[in-house]
Amino acid sequence: MKESGIGSQKIIRRKRDGELEYLPDELTIEEPLEILIGRKPIATTMRTPGHDEELAAGFLLSERLVRGRDQIASISVSAENRVVVTLTDGVKLKLSSTKRFGTISSSCGLCGKTNIDAIRQDFPAIRSTDIRTDIETLLSLPEKLRNAQSDFARTGGIHAAGIFGMDGKLKIAREDIGRHNAVDKAIGRAFLDELLPLDRHLLLVSGRASFEIIQKALAAGIPIVAAVSAPSSLAVELARDSNQTLIGFLRPPAFNIYTHIERVILRDL
Amino acid sequence: MKESGIGSQKIIRRKRDGELEYLPDELTIEEPLEILIGRKPIATTMRTPGHDEELAAGFLLSERLVRGRDQIASISVSAENRVVVTLTDGVKLKLSSTKRFGTISSSCGLCGKTNIDAIRQDFPAIRSTDIRTDIETLLSLPEKLRNAQSDFARTGGIHAAGIFGMDGKLKIAREDIGRHNAVDKAIGRAFLDELLPLDRHLLLVSGRASFEIIQKALAAGIPIVAAVSAPSSLAVELARDSNQTLIGFLRPPAFNIYTHIERVILRDL
Repeated sequence: MKESGIGSQKIIRRKRDGELEYLPDELTIEEPLEILIGRKPIATTMRTPGHDEELAAGFLLSERLVRGRDQIASISVSAENRVVVTLTDGVKLKLSSTKRFGTISSSCGLCGKTNIDAIRQDFPAIRSTDIRTDIETLLSLPEKLRNAQSDFARTGGIHAAGIFGMDGKLKIAREDIGRHNAVDKAIGRAFLDELLPLDRHLLLVSGRASFEIIQKALAAGIPIVAAVSAPSSLAVELARDSNQTLIGFLRPPAFNIYTHIERVILRDL
Repeated sequence: MKESGIGSQKIIRRKRDGELEYLPDELTIEEPLEILIGRKPIATTMRTPGHDEELAAGFLLSERLVRGRDQIASISVSAENRVVVTLTDGVKLKLSSTKRFGTISSSCGLCGKTNIDAIRQDFPAIRSTDIRTDIETLLSLPEKLRNAQSDFARTGGIHAAGIFGMDGKLKIAREDIGRHNAVDKAIGRAFLDELLPLDRHLLLVSGRASFEIIQKALAAGIPIVAAVSAPSSLAVELARDSNQTLIGFLRPPAFNIYTHIERVILRDL
């Protein structure tokens, strides 16, 4: 992920000592990406360029427009900021589904449903019950994810999502100006590599855990989700119903467990 | 804003000393809000409940579905999580515009356009050229906005948006799990009070400044936008083109100026 998605320009900086300087600065790149299925535009998302095929795959997966890897024949970047998904012969896209999508900002993962009932996709709950992690593994995750990011990204606000094995090993790390895009890219990669369900994996996101993040993890079958910041009320509700363990404020040595604590080995208790 | 939009539940917390405790915790509430114009659903947004009429007004304004206060006859909360806007007799909604909206997540302000060209609304650039602010005023803003938030909101990740006069006085403060919603609520309030254009005001947002935040400020005619975190490349581009001063990483005593520095009095230079 080093140095991707970063632009530069000159800025005026007031330093902590009050001194002013005129210097080059780095910016996270935010550009629209249009996702098409065949010739039909499905959605436009504000994202940081890079791994666009994965982003498209992860988006289609978490919106349930595709359910298996074999439904996608190919994904190609057809022009700048445009990616085209070709479905396998015989796979039909429900047109009613596609009506729900429009443009999605850099922080949006739920865009496009036209009423409240449609927000929650009907993904099955996680079934694995024997997966457990321990405190040491959990505490090790944030540093591993940060180490996979560039210096700028660590400090400047590119969000990151990491998929880890149960041994705490980082398997896929992706970053984007939007949290949901970073997650789409990470689960999209796993989906394209036919690794789903990720029922023996953990997901860590660098920011907050909203409803949409939990739902994307559920789409990939991930039983344990951790976030560096706070979860929302709806994220907690969905995680509880979906048999997902949700950890928030994972800032070593501290963290909170919101749901399904049975997957965390708490020797101190 | 005290204590609004907060729910509670029991969690397990691992404290910094390694001790575990089982205690009640607060959560930011995230729920869908359906916005209708008359009987037509326009969008569903993931938001923190409260100030829903303002959110609807700010959304319609920044999506250019309405242009003046006189185009809105009334806005009413018709049911839980549903707000209905009644347009003034004779005001027609372009149906093609409404097709662009779907569900908007808690962090999304640009949802609903179906291609790249449609992302940028055609708001006129800021015309005021005589507005200036100074370093002391800028540095005073974050604390004023934080003081208007509840204790939980300050630490737990509810975003805030504040509209300030040129004297640095906080005039409107709103919070939400989504940055764009907080901004919609703040500019929606000003719009309903017929205070637009806010051409002698500053906007401060608690998080990052994305394209959508700059565009919403532009919709309200705000010439100076400050963010506690980083702006995106597209935010900087839009602010430059729109004659808006954009300040990022406003963390006293430091900050960065990205565009239209002429509105900041820098005596030290």
